[in-house]
Amino acid sequence: MARTPFNPSRRQLLAMIGQVAGAAAMYQAMTSMGFAQESGYTGPVALQGPRQGRRVLVLGAGIAGMAAAYEMRRAGYEVKILEYQSRHGGRCLTLRGGDRFTEMGGHEIACDFQGDSYFNPGPWRLPVHHRAVMDYCRRLGVPIQTFINKNNRAYLHSATAFDGQPQRIGHVEKDMRGHVSELLAKSLHQGALDQAVTPEDREKLLEGLKDWGVLDRHYRYRASDDLGGVRGWDIPPGGGLMPGQEPSEPLELSPLLQSGLWDQLFNFNSYTFEPPMFEPVGGMDAITDAFAREVADVIQLNARVTRIAQSDDGVRVTYADGANGGVMREESADWCICTIPLSVLVQLDVDCSDAMRRAIGAVPYASAFKVALEFRRRFWEQDDEILGGITYTDLPLVQIAYPSYGFLTEGPAVLQAAYDTATAGRTFTYSWSAMTPQERIDAALALGRQIHPQYDAEFLSGTSWVWHRVDWSLGCYGQWTDDLRDAHYETLCEIDNRLVLAGEHCSHIPAWLEGSLLSALDAIRRLDQKENA
Amino acid sequence: MARTPFNPSRRQLLAMIGQVAGAAAMYQAMTSMGFAQESGYTGPVALQGPRQGRRVLVLGAGIAGMAAAYEMRRAGYEVKILEYQSRHGGRCLTLRGGDRFTEMGGHEIACDFQGDSYFNPGPWRLPVHHRAVMDYCRRLGVPIQTFINKNNRAYLHSATAFDGQPQRIGHVEKDMRGHVSELLAKSLHQGALDQAVTPEDREKLLEGLKDWGVLDRHYRYRASDDLGGVRGWDIPPGGGLMPGQEPSEPLELSPLLQSGLWDQLFNFNSYTFEPPMFEPVGGMDAITDAFAREVADVIQLNARVTRIAQSDDGVRVTYADGANGGVMREESADWCICTIPLSVLVQLDVDCSDAMRRAIGAVPYASAFKVALEFRRRFWEQDDEILGGITYTDLPLVQIAYPSYGFLTEGPAVLQAAYDTATAGRTFTYSWSAMTPQERIDAALALGRQIHPQYDAEFLSGTSWVWHRVDWSLGCYGQWTDDLRDAHYETLCEIDNRLVLAGEHCSHIPAWLEGSLLSALDAIRRLDQKENA
Repeated sequence: MARTPFNPSRRQLLAMIGQVAGAAAMYQAMTSMGFAQESGYTGPVALQGPRQGRRVLVLGAGIAGMAAAYEMRRAGYEVKILEYQSRHGGRCLTLRGGDRFTEMGGHEIACDFQGDSYFNPGPWRLPVHHRAVMDYCRRLGVPIQTFINKNNRAYLHSATAFDGQPQRIGHVEKDMRGHVSELLAKSLHQGALDQAVTPEDREKLLEGLKDWGVLDRHYRYRASDDLGGVRGWDIPPGGGLMPGQEPSEPLELSPLLQSGLWDQLFNFNSYTFEPPMFEPVGGMDAITDAFAREVADVIQLNARVTRIAQSDDGVRVTYADGANGGVMREESADWCICTIPLSVLVQLDVDCSDAMRRAIGAVPYASAFKVALEFRRRFWEQDDEILGGITYTDLPLVQIAYPSYGFLTEGPAVLQAAYDTATAGRTFTYSWSAMTPQERIDAALALGRQIHPQYDAEFLSGTSWVWHRVDWSLGCYGQWTDDLRDAHYETLCEIDNRLVLAGEHCSHIPAWLEGSLLSALDAIRRLDQKENA
Repeated sequence: MARTPFNPSRRQLLAMIGQVAGAAAMYQAMTSMGFAQESGYTGPVALQGPRQGRRVLVLGAGIAGMAAAYEMRRAGYEVKILEYQSRHGGRCLTLRGGDRFTEMGGHEIACDFQGDSYFNPGPWRLPVHHRAVMDYCRRLGVPIQTFINKNNRAYLHSATAFDGQPQRIGHVEKDMRGHVSELLAKSLHQGALDQAVTPEDREKLLEGLKDWGVLDRHYRYRASDDLGGVRGWDIPPGGGLMPGQEPSEPLELSPLLQSGLWDQLFNFNSYTFEPPMFEPVGGMDAITDAFAREVADVIQLNARVTRIAQSDDGVRVTYADGANGGVMREESADWCICTIPLSVLVQLDVDCSDAMRRAIGAVPYASAFKVALEFRRRFWEQDDEILGGITYTDLPLVQIAYPSYGFLTEGPAVLQAAYDTATAGRTFTYSWSAMTPQERIDAALALGRQIHPQYDAEFLSGTSWVWHRVDWSLGCYGQWTDDLRDAHYETLCEIDNRLVLAGEHCSHIPAWLEGSLLSALDAIRRLDQKENA
């Protein structure tokens, strides 16, 4: 009788090692199996280069297109980029005072910032583990600074909780941790978990909960000087003969649970938002400008692609040449890397397999908007002690982000005063997308003053960005579902004869620069392999 | 029969309002009672100024002395500062390449950094709620930048846990939170806490724990794609047809509890260290340099005070004039503000009450040391993805701090490679204080390479600072206990006829610039009141 074959997965194998030999042995095994080592981006892409002169046509001068062009040219390919807009950078863009943009529907977006603040309508922050982005910043000399994502002094706010008074993030976080610690300590003392926890672990756990939750000697979460040292003070410790310190009073468990503020805290829970995060100094377009410095000579702007034809010998791309009255022209090449958003691409005439055509048409584009407001002074710093970070609210503005630069300076500064995407099950974005630019500013002011009453006295001007009103993207990013991925993702990413797609829509990190870059790097690696096959 | 008088404390009153009328009403009451509003520093000090020409002699050109001089002069007092050293700034100092210092015992501290990194032997980071410091930075135009104190990718390390492999801070934090959530959810499901939690709160709590702890649908803390999105990946999500993502595997509860790494995490728990923190651009001495720009004309350097005499009419201070061969000189004034550390002051001849003399002699000075190492490259960024933040270990180096500036740059950079004070019950500082400068560097290298094996290949040079070997401070800061405070603090801070003391030792925030500043501001406010009484 044949024995059942023993083919454990890597994960099963590790679990067994862990059970038999303990955590340390498991960790060692993980390392030696290359498991604890994250992969993804492991350094500059190594291409073999073309066997003979080869021409590559890149469609779109966003970060995916420019990165593909940069690397392909370094490897010896001849490269040209066709770009629809009169600018490079794609969805990675930065608005500054004086900028104008006409959105679909005919309204003009005006940015009239008086100060030197900037506003990033698209990507605006970099996780440190987005290795491709960070490595290109390093290689291309883009200076970065800390982006404060979580600021314990910023607020969580619900219009219906605590009388509409915003609560400090650090207070909600520490109070929930304290209450959870008190409850778990109570269970442990009652013996309720004696089946789940050994006596040795139980002692360590109780000891740890006391410190972590800042419990008193009766394992209760109560105001005390110890808690003041962790949660903050009503009257802080002073100098000389200033009045004695008074610790702050924790929020009680029940109103806190019912307020929904704990849930808002989970906005900071994601690995993507782990501290520290970063941003390029001076605006996100510093990254795409750095790529453009490398490839500007091969970018043709104002080139509106209408048809992508291909045969076994090569590709022919037809485009309207906006710099010459829209006359139709044609470019030929051996390979085509197309980074045009699917929302636009689906409307073009593309030679590709039926399956790829279905994939191109299958992915909806997420709705997203932002409003930015310039104020006379940094009242959030001066009055509320909020330097950087994000306030979350259940109002339809969803979040207010404070600048991570220019701290303590006088003069005007800009808040990202409203931002949401339609991915979280919320539908606020549709209402905002339906508003005129002026209505969006009015709404951001009317809502935001519930959190920052200084809005009225300090407001200077506002601007906004609604991704579904942008003619060159028709939405913000590819909104994949698990079902859509199963049905279409591989097809979308495969090389179709002489054509390969790239961009955040061809990645598992939608909406992020890292997804765009990784998709471009993977596409050119496979294309280079096919060239050399 | 007389009724028991009803005299509730402010806190008791609030608790009653909370019980009767709920949390929102309590919050309102707190605000209207000025309770939720923190005090301490509320803005620039307002002095009446002298009734007639008055001379104030300030001893010590550290931040307390310079701030006192700056504000007193603005209010119309004539001011002079006597400073023992040939530099201003006191314990707020920054070392850069080329700096030399001879410590007690005769050894020379050499700083031979090749790059433009700096090292702050004393204060090195600013909490945002240290309002006096922040406000002076604003008023005196000191640019600040984010100081990354907590970096989830930095390490917690124990030589005896996990085979000595450092663990990422974010992993320990999220795993403990997950295990705690799983255990509490189990208790709630068992009904163990039905007396403590209402059914409504129980439901909210279970729902919240599932999100907060990233529990699966059986309320277990297990590897999953959801957890990958919070804890990180063994194989991260990629672009194009890169290999599929694999979530990371959590550390198990028991080894984690027994490792002691959870305790190390509490280093980040303090209100003082809440994110975000800040630092002056270019080194902490930017703050004291800014004060010196305002008061340099009244500072006499190299003035070694030996005697402080006072009568009802004024003070006479005797000092050795180091700029003129040490000849003894005398300065007279109406008031004296003395910021000399108690460790030094106790050795001088001071006219003051017996009680104040006992207070001056009662406070021991904390031991503290730091070692800084310069390396050829930022291997912590390039190899370990640690940009800023602090690694904690149970090795005697205690902590390694990574620079919060110059991210991604090539070339040499400096780690604060060892740092501890003697306040936490640990005694590592005494061993380090006993070492020669070279031995400290060797020890920091030998210990640190257990966490960063790159130390050996990349080391360039090192420097160190041991506060008990500094002749002008004889220790790091006043190490108060509750008993010492009860016995001596008020006496120490009271104005003794014409003399008042100031500095971090005269504050409830020892060792911090904020304590020095608040003590100086409180001292001059009281002195100004006495002048005008």
